[in-house]
Amino acid sequence: MSSTGSSKFYGYKGKILRLDLTNKKAVKMEPSPELVRNFISARGFGAKILWDEMKPGTDPLSPESKVVISWSPLTGTTAQSFHRVFVVFKSPLTGGYFRSVGGGFFAAEMKFAGYDGIIIEGRAEKPTYVWIHDDEVEFRDATHVWGMTIDGTTEFLRDETDKEARLLGIGPAGERLVRFACLVTDDYRTPGRGGGGAVWGAKNLKAIIVKASSREVELFNPDAFDKLVEEQTNVYMKSPLFESFNKFGTGGVTYNFYTLGHNPTYNFKQIELENIEVFKTEVQEKYIVKHTGCYGCKISCGKKWKLTKGPYAGYVWDFPEYETQWSFGSTCGVTNLEAILVANNICDRYGVDTISAGAAIAFAMELYEKGIITEKETDGLKLRWGDGDVVIELVRKIALREGIGNILAEGTKRAAEIIGRGAEKYAMHAKALELPAYDPRAAKAHGLSYATSNIGGSHMIGWNHYEILGVPKKVDPFTTEGKGELAKRVQDFIAGYESAGFCAFGGLVTVGYYNDEDKMFELISGLLYAATGIEEFKNPKYLWLVGERIYNLERAFNAREGFTRKDDWVPERIQKVPVPRPPAKGQIFELDKLLDDYYKARGWDIKTGIPTRRKLEEIGLKQVADELEKLGKLPS
Amino acid sequence: MSSTGSSKFYGYKGKILRLDLTNKKAVKMEPSPELVRNFISARGFGAKILWDEMKPGTDPLSPESKVVISWSPLTGTTAQSFHRVFVVFKSPLTGGYFRSVGGGFFAAEMKFAGYDGIIIEGRAEKPTYVWIHDDEVEFRDATHVWGMTIDGTTEFLRDETDKEARLLGIGPAGERLVRFACLVTDDYRTPGRGGGGAVWGAKNLKAIIVKASSREVELFNPDAFDKLVEEQTNVYMKSPLFESFNKFGTGGVTYNFYTLGHNPTYNFKQIELENIEVFKTEVQEKYIVKHTGCYGCKISCGKKWKLTKGPYAGYVWDFPEYETQWSFGSTCGVTNLEAILVANNICDRYGVDTISAGAAIAFAMELYEKGIITEKETDGLKLRWGDGDVVIELVRKIALREGIGNILAEGTKRAAEIIGRGAEKYAMHAKALELPAYDPRAAKAHGLSYATSNIGGSHMIGWNHYEILGVPKKVDPFTTEGKGELAKRVQDFIAGYESAGFCAFGGLVTVGYYNDEDKMFELISGLLYAATGIEEFKNPKYLWLVGERIYNLERAFNAREGFTRKDDWVPERIQKVPVPRPPAKGQIFELDKLLDDYYKARGWDIKTGIPTRRKLEEIGLKQVADELEKLGKLPS
Repeated sequence: MSSTGSSKFYGYKGKILRLDLTNKKAVKMEPSPELVRNFISARGFGAKILWDEMKPGTDPLSPESKVVISWSPLTGTTAQSFHRVFVVFKSPLTGGYFRSVGGGFFAAEMKFAGYDGIIIEGRAEKPTYVWIHDDEVEFRDATHVWGMTIDGTTEFLRDETDKEARLLGIGPAGERLVRFACLVTDDYRTPGRGGGGAVWGAKNLKAIIVKASSREVELFNPDAFDKLVEEQTNVYMKSPLFESFNKFGTGGVTYNFYTLGHNPTYNFKQIELENIEVFKTEVQEKYIVKHTGCYGCKISCGKKWKLTKGPYAGYVWDFPEYETQWSFGSTCGVTNLEAILVANNICDRYGVDTISAGAAIAFAMELYEKGIITEKETDGLKLRWGDGDVVIELVRKIALREGIGNILAEGTKRAAEIIGRGAEKYAMHAKALELPAYDPRAAKAHGLSYATSNIGGSHMIGWNHYEILGVPKKVDPFTTEGKGELAKRVQDFIAGYESAGFCAFGGLVTVGYYNDEDKMFELISGLLYAATGIEEFKNPKYLWLVGERIYNLERAFNAREGFTRKDDWVPERIQKVPVPRPPAKGQIFELDKLLDDYYKARGWDIKTGIPTRRKLEEIGLKQVADELEKLGKLPS
Repeated sequence: MSSTGSSKFYGYKGKILRLDLTNKKAVKMEPSPELVRNFISARGFGAKILWDEMKPGTDPLSPESKVVISWSPLTGTTAQSFHRVFVVFKSPLTGGYFRSVGGGFFAAEMKFAGYDGIIIEGRAEKPTYVWIHDDEVEFRDATHVWGMTIDGTTEFLRDETDKEARLLGIGPAGERLVRFACLVTDDYRTPGRGGGGAVWGAKNLKAIIVKASSREVELFNPDAFDKLVEEQTNVYMKSPLFESFNKFGTGGVTYNFYTLGHNPTYNFKQIELENIEVFKTEVQEKYIVKHTGCYGCKISCGKKWKLTKGPYAGYVWDFPEYETQWSFGSTCGVTNLEAILVANNICDRYGVDTISAGAAIAFAMELYEKGIITEKETDGLKLRWGDGDVVIELVRKIALREGIGNILAEGTKRAAEIIGRGAEKYAMHAKALELPAYDPRAAKAHGLSYATSNIGGSHMIGWNHYEILGVPKKVDPFTTEGKGELAKRVQDFIAGYESAGFCAFGGLVTVGYYNDEDKMFELISGLLYAATGIEEFKNPKYLWLVGERIYNLERAFNAREGFTRKDDWVPERIQKVPVPRPPAKGQIFELDKLLDDYYKARGWDIKTGIPTRRKLEEIGLKQVADELEKLGKLPS
């Protein structure tokens, strides 16, 4: 049986919903067979549609800016970890391509309602929310919920629609155009990074809320599908990486990663952090009162923490992820778990990326330490390292753009430019995206992904399981040898499984079981084929190709916007200052050497870091090469 | 048709549920015909059962202490405003009888589940919640929710029982035995005063959560009942007092009451409050984003406020009632509506009585002003009048018994004793219950109810509609003339309609329409008879008798505990310092004169303020007289 030429793509019975906010028009379109076959779904859809529809030079906060939201043909099925929501847009923080991923139940509900994706465009005249009930799509006034945090917004909009509806929305930070404001689901599984919340805010879009009548997803070959899901479940249960995610979530690694040279302290100064032991799992587990998961996922990586001591006793909230334990913890010198949870709570409710917020606060703390800013600029706050209450107050100020928070809300790169006086030396970002909880000096391929990532300093674009976890095999994290190829491999691997809408934690659990990436792709390919009947997906190698295709297309998007090799950069501290603590003691990040190696592995032009025609044609992106050439951006 | 002798009380098909926490035993009992006929329900049940079952001298925080929770035979019916939850117990604040009333949906759900009341006794070995699903009653471990605020507790316990279950529970303040910790419903309609939360906390009882399968209440004469409900609805719609409650809730009166000499400023110093205009309805209405009501009530006096400016922008929460606008506002010199809402939010979530909390803070602010306490005692906080942030921080400290909050959590009377140095002069309470938002000097009969109330300084026991609203007729609030009789009349009137579980706001709306209390009793009696078929209830005069009976029984309870005339008291400032601002300028509260007049009107002994045998026998409480006599408490 072949789907070629057929108009019926089994797993794509849904429509792509185009929401034109300017004209309050909702148009439903079939995803084209070409889009589906070449980009599969999720991140693939986002990259391709954004490339096709968004003119270079568009201001991310203008009505012309677009947001693509999509998921997978496997979303809403019994398969594990394919229920995530991919948000692709041009970032108001980086000025480049962005992909941000969240979890929860929103994607599954949208799939049940009959959709495979959403394109948001235009700008509503006044605050608006969109209510989707199966085929019906309504643009509704959101003036009454504008200004509300996510909890209040969810409560109000569920009252007006359906008590069990699922929501994706923004908080006050998005409305106030905080450049790293995020989108938040009703259950706080945020597509966190890059400022998607500000893009919605600029469009006067408060929320999309959806309820489907059915819970069904039609499959091409249900029996084959069920068998593969059984195998997948078996893999999860037997994976050596399952238990830690399941018991502790990502918080399970906080202390261990510190001992690997990550969890970088004090704005990447990397001095030893006293009292780091509070992050050990035996301490964290005392806080856990509930395990929560996204739609139908056995990993249940979410934990609810209960605080019973200190000034915040009484709080119960989603635990801070490893990244957040770092961003409001180690990098600010804070070891007060209660304060970290409360800062996380504010971010969730106000819609702020915890990583960028914490990084911006660590940056401000270092400026205060150096005397570059004083209490005059901080509304009297003493920005001392390790003060959890100051962190909480600064998060609030950032979310509401109040005082010093109004500057930090611009992101560290812009904040440094505004402050001047040498502040940029302490702004720890790549392409204006704040660096997260791993030290590039302590894992060179992972760090190379910070530098080369199309979305800036992200840990998710090239999370290096070889260097950090030693799966499928251990690679020396400190050597520069072979790291160009390794960074490329992992970036394409991730883009590959993200084209199927798969979750990174599902990825780690699976590759940790097989110790073989190809085996994992075989499983995903099998699921994709059993669900859709599309021949191309049958071939497990195809995911590698689609991954590389997506990665190159994203690169081309940035090239079209003017990004070149000079933007593949990490801060001076990372490049020149040796790490002072073991095990990475003495390490620096050899940027230029690593970049040369990487571009070579990628088949990109070494001078500009832009894909060559040859590479683009090889992976089916001839038209992209043509357009870059027309714009004078294609390397000669 | 007569119910006499019949075992079937139509409106009392439900059982009284005895929850023995010590032995995890739930026993269901028929309410006895005698109890029903003599005390009807609600406050009547509470007063009678507490009198019968609680030995004098019992420590309210001991296992021997009991709590009676009850509602009305009209609860869950289509009749308006009979769906409140009455909580009766011995108060850890006053050491005397207490009745506290909340709203929401808990009582209706309990009624649907088949119950007319609950008696709580004993002490659970460890944190416990009770799950009631129709006939099934389960004692369950609550260790995981112990320490959580009400929002988290509700979310967790609904997840474990039923998503639509209704809850009555305590927050961290009740667990920490704050003497004015309250009970809170899932929708924050708190039975607020007197420390019921601490009584539950001492019993290790975190919550009662209930879901009924049916929504039916059987009626004696459905047709007659429906007609009366139609009349009641008509009354509501036409009442001149309906609109203000409906549009603004009790916040509609804040500014007006200030101009009447209430809304007493600065801990009853009653200096003019600058910026009082912020409490006008035209300012308040800008905050309102939703109207909410208790089960089936058209008044919808609840409002949700949204904050969009200042440091708390993003909050959406139940608006602060008039009392709370006063307690965190005028009496602390605060005119920051945002801060008042946030303080209210903390009280709701942590389970703290807003009136006592605000009054305790005003007391502390005056001690700080007078230099009786300094920053040494306040953990460095400057307790300056008018500082909303300080109010918020103190509420938090009280709820968690932290620093100065640990002292204030004892209530102003005990706090003054602990602090010494003349602090008691500034403790504005009656019988240790903090005085609320009316100045006794500006309404003498109302003030007389503060002094004589069996539960201490409560505005709800004798809210004087004659003096304050001029309904059913205007009475000069400043004269002492006839105020003994007037205070008695209003106290009995309220106890009368509270024996039927009716709401005070329903009472005001109704009496405001009829301009006649007897007409209102006629309506309620009609509803009671149509619902239950109990002959006695047919007679509208009967409610006056039951009201007086309840009031005297409550008095007898206190007499048995050792209360006498000396406890019918208001602070020196009220008795001796003339009000400095118009319209009550120059007024003091003539305590002794008013008390003499009141006891005479009550037929009580003037020396002791205790009911005489003659009075007790006249109202059907001979056995009460006998017991008081046995204990040597009956006036000779």
